[in-house]
Amino acid sequence: MSTIADVASRAGVSKATASRALSGRGYVSTATRQRVADAARELSYVAHSSATSLATGRTRTVGVVMPPVDRWFFAELLAGVQESLFALDYDLSLYGVPEGSKTRERLFESILPGRRFDGIIAVGIQPSARELERLQQAGRPLVSVGPYSEGSSAVSIDDTAAARIATEHLIELGHTDIAFVGGSTDAAELSFGDAQRLDGYRGALRAAGLSAHARIAGAAPTMPGGYTAAAGLLGDRRRRPTAIVGVCDEAAIGAIIAARRLGIAVPTELSVVGVDDHEHADMFALTTIGQSPRDQGHEAVRLLTQQMEDPDAPLERVDAASALVVRSSTAPPR
Amino acid sequence: MSTIADVASRAGVSKATASRALSGRGYVSTATRQRVADAARELSYVAHSSATSLATGRTRTVGVVMPPVDRWFFAELLAGVQESLFALDYDLSLYGVPEGSKTRERLFESILPGRRFDGIIAVGIQPSARELERLQQAGRPLVSVGPYSEGSSAVSIDDTAAARIATEHLIELGHTDIAFVGGSTDAAELSFGDAQRLDGYRGALRAAGLSAHARIAGAAPTMPGGYTAAAGLLGDRRRRPTAIVGVCDEAAIGAIIAARRLGIAVPTELSVVGVDDHEHADMFALTTIGQSPRDQGHEAVRLLTQQMEDPDAPLERVDAASALVVRSSTAPPR
Repeated sequence: MSTIADVASRAGVSKATASRALSGRGYVSTATRQRVADAARELSYVAHSSATSLATGRTRTVGVVMPPVDRWFFAELLAGVQESLFALDYDLSLYGVPEGSKTRERLFESILPGRRFDGIIAVGIQPSARELERLQQAGRPLVSVGPYSEGSSAVSIDDTAAARIATEHLIELGHTDIAFVGGSTDAAELSFGDAQRLDGYRGALRAAGLSAHARIAGAAPTMPGGYTAAAGLLGDRRRRPTAIVGVCDEAAIGAIIAARRLGIAVPTELSVVGVDDHEHADMFALTTIGQSPRDQGHEAVRLLTQQMEDPDAPLERVDAASALVVRSSTAPPR
Repeated sequence: MSTIADVASRAGVSKATASRALSGRGYVSTATRQRVADAARELSYVAHSSATSLATGRTRTVGVVMPPVDRWFFAELLAGVQESLFALDYDLSLYGVPEGSKTRERLFESILPGRRFDGIIAVGIQPSARELERLQQAGRPLVSVGPYSEGSSAVSIDDTAAARIATEHLIELGHTDIAFVGGSTDAAELSFGDAQRLDGYRGALRAAGLSAHARIAGAAPTMPGGYTAAAGLLGDRRRRPTAIVGVCDEAAIGAIIAARRLGIAVPTELSVVGVDDHEHADMFALTTIGQSPRDQGHEAVRLLTQQMEDPDAPLERVDAASALVVRSSTAPPR
């Protein structure tokens, strides 16, 4: 098997230059990089990252722990993390948080502590105290993304404020009968962020003296979930709310589709507001609270890099930007 | 720093048992696993996977190369790959295929060949001949998922047949004016799979003597893409088709939403059929060709495992299942 010295010799460069050219780490001119790449190809050379890792004590790998990527938020966030890690030449080791307590225990008790990363990014996983302890025990920097962040650096939007602002927008337009779609009256069923959004909705109603009007239609935070819950809510025209706050844009879009199916005009007969600025929000002219999970991914990598460079750096909590985006799904009540 | 011997001694088991318990590889009773985990925690023991990897020549890591996970198909497929790799105790190193030729070249020329994996799964990336050569040079098993698969084991549905069957379903119902939404007349803009679906549509029309009726509305394979293209197609009532084939369910759902906005009833005035059986297909009662990207992810790992166990095993091409799912978005023309 050829060595880096063979490649360097064939390309007519130093071992250090050959190493930089092949790893992509550090500056090498395009022409030299090509010459080294050609030599490596001719010799079928493959660098051994395990050996590099033992020699340097660094793996240049970041572990990312997150739920299945089947929601827009997680997919966008992962894309942001990927972009930043790629630019910094870090590898990304992806761990899904499995459903079921047995496999989840295996992940936190034996898999993650046994792998070597330079750092970990944990996304929306609400680790238990025990799990967090286990993650921290390995002594690697940890950054959380999402609303749950005790004991680590973290980046998230203020979910309570987001839903409060969305609800206040409707109150300012003159609505008093405002329902929340996508929440659950059973706190155990709600994710931490969704629970905070429900709190924000309740807080806005309370501040406006409208607590008695609070109506929560439990539903999954998805388009079909919002569709089903809203269809139930809008079916009885005598009890129909004049406005809906979706726990997220997917649920809000489901509500708009349900309204159209029932012949209820948005926004003249029903105002709908969401949270997220999902990629489909524009198509449905949805008024929403915009956030950028992709930027949050970049930010998480920035925080992690700080911690990896200086393990004694203080923990930092970054409130990511979110702001009202007014489109045409909201209007004063008739 | 504590060693595995320290952990074994504290837990009162052999080093081999302690190693099995901590790696999760091989059988250990729950009670013993717990005792070893406790000992490891008390000693703040962390296994060094790089050392293990140098000793065994195996990394127990699979590289997965795929586009951004912001489409349902890729997210589901990744979930399937994750499930199977987790069950087999393999790590997953994720590489996004970046846009832009420079970064893409860096990925294939220096990053991937320099990393150590036991195998690679390449999803929907249509590698160039040069890229494929570079992937294969490292001598690691390679499995492709998606329609492009020369030179490697592969799993995919027959995209041509899927769109042909969808189109034939409309022809059998009596439609003759059938448009295709989500394709492009510019072949360079189409992904390999989408081009095959367009071929399938054209083939079905040709076989039925309807080639002169072919109409292709170029659009991104997304809900907003399908919405915009269908709105254009349906706007002129004198040239309106009686049926639409979406290049994928997202595009087909966009077409249904456009039809509803225009007051066109589905299926009485317009039939719509998609391909995929997306998670939202049921909510829109969409007739479609069902496939399971999650199962394809499982299948890709199975093929890769075969190749990893026996590098001389012959390449295998698996046609994943797909079949017509009839819901109520299709009916005979009026």
